[in-house]
Amino acid sequence: MATNNYKFILAYEGTNYHGFQIQNNALTIQELLENALQKIYKQHIRVHPAGRTDRGVHARGQVVNFKAPDYVPVNNLPAALNSILPADIIVYNASLVPDSFHARFNAKGKCYIYRLDLGAYPDLFWRRFAWHIPVKLDLEQMKEAAIYMIGRRDFASFQAAGSSTKDTVRELYELSFSSNNQILSLTFKADGFLYKMVRNITGTLVDVGRGRIQLSAIPALLEKKDRRYAGLTAPAHGLCLENVYYNPM
Amino acid sequence: MATNNYKFILAYEGTNYHGFQIQNNALTIQELLENALQKIYKQHIRVHPAGRTDRGVHARGQVVNFKAPDYVPVNNLPAALNSILPADIIVYNASLVPDSFHARFNAKGKCYIYRLDLGAYPDLFWRRFAWHIPVKLDLEQMKEAAIYMIGRRDFASFQAAGSSTKDTVRELYELSFSSNNQILSLTFKADGFLYKMVRNITGTLVDVGRGRIQLSAIPALLEKKDRRYAGLTAPAHGLCLENVYYNPM
Repeated sequence: MATNNYKFILAYEGTNYHGFQIQNNALTIQELLENALQKIYKQHIRVHPAGRTDRGVHARGQVVNFKAPDYVPVNNLPAALNSILPADIIVYNASLVPDSFHARFNAKGKCYIYRLDLGAYPDLFWRRFAWHIPVKLDLEQMKEAAIYMIGRRDFASFQAAGSSTKDTVRELYELSFSSNNQILSLTFKADGFLYKMVRNITGTLVDVGRGRIQLSAIPALLEKKDRRYAGLTAPAHGLCLENVYYNPM
Repeated sequence: MATNNYKFILAYEGTNYHGFQIQNNALTIQELLENALQKIYKQHIRVHPAGRTDRGVHARGQVVNFKAPDYVPVNNLPAALNSILPADIIVYNASLVPDSFHARFNAKGKCYIYRLDLGAYPDLFWRRFAWHIPVKLDLEQMKEAAIYMIGRRDFASFQAAGSSTKDTVRELYELSFSSNNQILSLTFKADGFLYKMVRNITGTLVDVGRGRIQLSAIPALLEKKDRRYAGLTAPAHGLCLENVYYNPM
């Protein structure tokens, strides 16, 4: 039987999961996705994500690929999967891709949004998807600090302590701010991200906003290339993987 | 000790509750609110809502009043309550009101929003707060049907079957449509609402949108003053009590 390479775009709410990657003794997105595919194909199908998301992190544009027999029409796959998956994991799109396509190795970049809830009290609709910060933040200082981050830089100061990644240079194309009522969205687009980089930059920007880190300290903090000099790590639930970019196929 | 009359504006996600009103053997908003007040005042405090919301229905602008001793500064009450209440019930505002104020008897009108998710697949962020309808709806027909509803009318056809309310005339000031990406919000403002009126009108409009009820049948359906002639009841989770209106005090 012939095999196809499939690409899925999927969304999930991370609240109740221990991240994307399969683990012993903890429920993950990957496990549920592979179990659902097993129900359809009657064999184990391994999925490859564009990036692992951590426990509690959400996605609206995660991409996975997997190889599977060709007997299910690709346009039927999203509905078939969604009828098996729990309501907090949603397959939006399925397509056929060349055999050589790999969701992670072929990714040219990603977009994450980190959402802050700046209201005095949390917005009911956003409490699972935004970090509530009830203290006044100086947004102008935060925007100034963000400008220092943009570009091709060594982000070692924003890599999670203990990470083994050696090449810590990444190009941050965009770090922009947009507000909708009390929700402030920080949009990050880069050719790649170090482990916890978005949450560490966000935590540092929030520390600038509340006066714990001076704007003038940011260039030196990047220069140190040492996690201990940057600000706190923003909590997982404000983070969402929005998009993964590929070259046209 | 002197007693004050307090007014709270509160939000809650109805997903995990059996509605507002206290019940035996089922968890309700009222029970949790009264339990939280008991922790603060060391006595039972009865709260009076502007309106009971049903099981699964949300609120962003529910109003309650209650009489309690005057020893807690009113500005401290929201934070004190929120520290006790679960995260899906949020007190946004507390104020002192005249002794004669009653959240239900003094209400001059209310605003509800019913949200529909018209995407092929549910929007991850809105799945708890919008009714997902993946079939194509004729919005122009729905808007035409909505026009028949606006004004001072007998809404008996949209009252839940078995309701005992005798006076079924209400004035619907507004029934408007607004879209944000795949979420369509139907905003209802009226001097009052019959039991399940918003969900029954919404279900009927959706039936018009998918061609199960003809637009031309709407006037006769209102004339019948009989629930059996209208459309289905929209599910609870799309409904949210947004605002309660009072005369200036």
